[in-house]
Amino acid sequence: MGHLRQNMATKEWVIVSTERAKRPHEFAVRRDQATHSLPEWDADCPFCSGHEELDLELLRLPADGEWQVRVLRNKFPALEVKGDLVRSFDGVHRLMSGIGYHELVVDSCTHNACHARQTPAQVALVLEAFHRRAEVIASDPRIAQIIFFQNHGPSAGASLPHPHSQIVGLPIVPYEMRARAEEARRHYDDDGSCVLCAMLQDELADATRIVAESEHFVAFVPYAADSPFHTWILPRRHEPSFLGSTEAERADLGELLHRILAGLYAGLNDPDYNYILRTAPLQERCDYLHWYVTIVPRLTQAAGFELGSGMFINTVLPEECAAFLRAILADAEPARHLDTL
Amino acid sequence: MGHLRQNMATKEWVIVSTERAKRPHEFAVRRDQATHSLPEWDADCPFCSGHEELDLELLRLPADGEWQVRVLRNKFPALEVKGDLVRSFDGVHRLMSGIGYHELVVDSCTHNACHARQTPAQVALVLEAFHRRAEVIASDPRIAQIIFFQNHGPSAGASLPHPHSQIVGLPIVPYEMRARAEEARRHYDDDGSCVLCAMLQDELADATRIVAESEHFVAFVPYAADSPFHTWILPRRHEPSFLGSTEAERADLGELLHRILAGLYAGLNDPDYNYILRTAPLQERCDYLHWYVTIVPRLTQAAGFELGSGMFINTVLPEECAAFLRAILADAEPARHLDTL
Repeated sequence: MGHLRQNMATKEWVIVSTERAKRPHEFAVRRDQATHSLPEWDADCPFCSGHEELDLELLRLPADGEWQVRVLRNKFPALEVKGDLVRSFDGVHRLMSGIGYHELVVDSCTHNACHARQTPAQVALVLEAFHRRAEVIASDPRIAQIIFFQNHGPSAGASLPHPHSQIVGLPIVPYEMRARAEEARRHYDDDGSCVLCAMLQDELADATRIVAESEHFVAFVPYAADSPFHTWILPRRHEPSFLGSTEAERADLGELLHRILAGLYAGLNDPDYNYILRTAPLQERCDYLHWYVTIVPRLTQAAGFELGSGMFINTVLPEECAAFLRAILADAEPARHLDTL
Repeated sequence: MGHLRQNMATKEWVIVSTERAKRPHEFAVRRDQATHSLPEWDADCPFCSGHEELDLELLRLPADGEWQVRVLRNKFPALEVKGDLVRSFDGVHRLMSGIGYHELVVDSCTHNACHARQTPAQVALVLEAFHRRAEVIASDPRIAQIIFFQNHGPSAGASLPHPHSQIVGLPIVPYEMRARAEEARRHYDDDGSCVLCAMLQDELADATRIVAESEHFVAFVPYAADSPFHTWILPRRHEPSFLGSTEAERADLGELLHRILAGLYAGLNDPDYNYILRTAPLQERCDYLHWYVTIVPRLTQAAGFELGSGMFINTVLPEECAAFLRAILADAEPARHLDTL
């Protein structure tokens, strides 16, 4: 029989529906344009080597020689850096000027080198670029929250196939992030501990939902995962902000994130996904928060139920997703799965 | 310049991005399988006349003669009616048995008669079926919340093309609905009024975002609409629950809902959409809530930013969407747009 599980951190319930259950391998997709069918270089791609628009460039790594990662101003930004942050309220309409940062991270100079097909060091370099830009954006007193994310594939909202990530600096803390922080604070007040530290200890003790571990991080499918193969990567060390991460931690995360994305690529045939790096608000001290990365393969479609309730129906057990990914990652030659599907 | 607007009821901010602005007509879609290309009857469709599985049937309207609307038990329900509602909590994992209602409403006996192509009376009959089933489900003490919705088209999560809606009865009040109720209660405590009544008065006074009006309802694109053509239909009379609606109101809503869906169909070429009927929780008195219908055309794709922040970026002004829909609805022969695209 199906059941409902509650995510301890978000307090959201998810319906785990065994009546509609699928086996993990059934989520393997047939993409019309899988990454491996793309060329290494595209004459029309604005992110490929040789097409650098230098006036948009904010950062390149390494600073000298051939670049491997570039950060650019978005040509069509959702928010603008220039201007005053002005708020107005006439009793009904609350309005704010569209101030903020909207930056593009070109994850590789190679057109078809998505994270799964890059080296672990390359993924770490992207995280290093996130951190460098975060230090700059955090110094702007108008900005309250930074969000880092990658959209891979059209179902995940990617409009360009060249691998890229995005950094957004917002002048407010979004409502949902505020609600999650409030739940974390409540847990801290009740139990005297960080709720994500507690979840991490539980997942390690239980072990059935662990996907992979590294020196500084643990990847698992949460007990109340909203959707198939939804995976969290938590730092073992309690730290509210990605800004407080160390270079060694970022290098280690690059390796683990690469490993998991390569596993999804091999096991599910290059599924579309988003990954998001969640970190504490900038303008306040939130000792009860814990930064982390969440990977959301886009294998199902949110419908009226999800839009109307904010809840999700997961049609596969988190334990089965984790076991499937562990088996893929344990393969002596996971790379042999790549590009053969 | 772009700006941020706050929804007074949900307290969520939306980025209105004029840098990426589109004109309303640019959202007209080319569907691979638009409804008008479907046959009137499909030999393989489980919802077409002649394929009635009577053991699944919970309600048919009218009760005698040819049916026009049927309500069925879902063969693959996300939740099961039978069983005890048992909760458990071991200090970390909160779990509940998967008790609830998951019903399908066959909106018409005709395979290609989506709401836009039905008569207003037929849409009203679907709402009547919602109401009849709600009375039954509400009498079950295990159920805390009912959600009514329709998924139209594959981007909206519809797996079958025959027009159908769904009714879900949940054993809990979802987190997001609880958060919205909390905001409404806060407004009530501060201002002594229902926040949706206040928004309705403001929209009527402002008039720029009104789409259509009827005796008992007003349809408008909210000031802080999350996405293009997002439309709310509010009852003029303050009432927390759809269960408290009158038959005259439901008939009037059927007419207005039909008019707006026909306008979207004609103006945007049969876009995929969800509509959701939001009503108060069952087991408590919530005088500060106000039931309503929300229509969400699925014209954009939620990406990492939306998943990570819970916020949305709207690339078209709500005022422009409303003006576009008003112009379509004012056309002397809106029906001439139908099926000609």
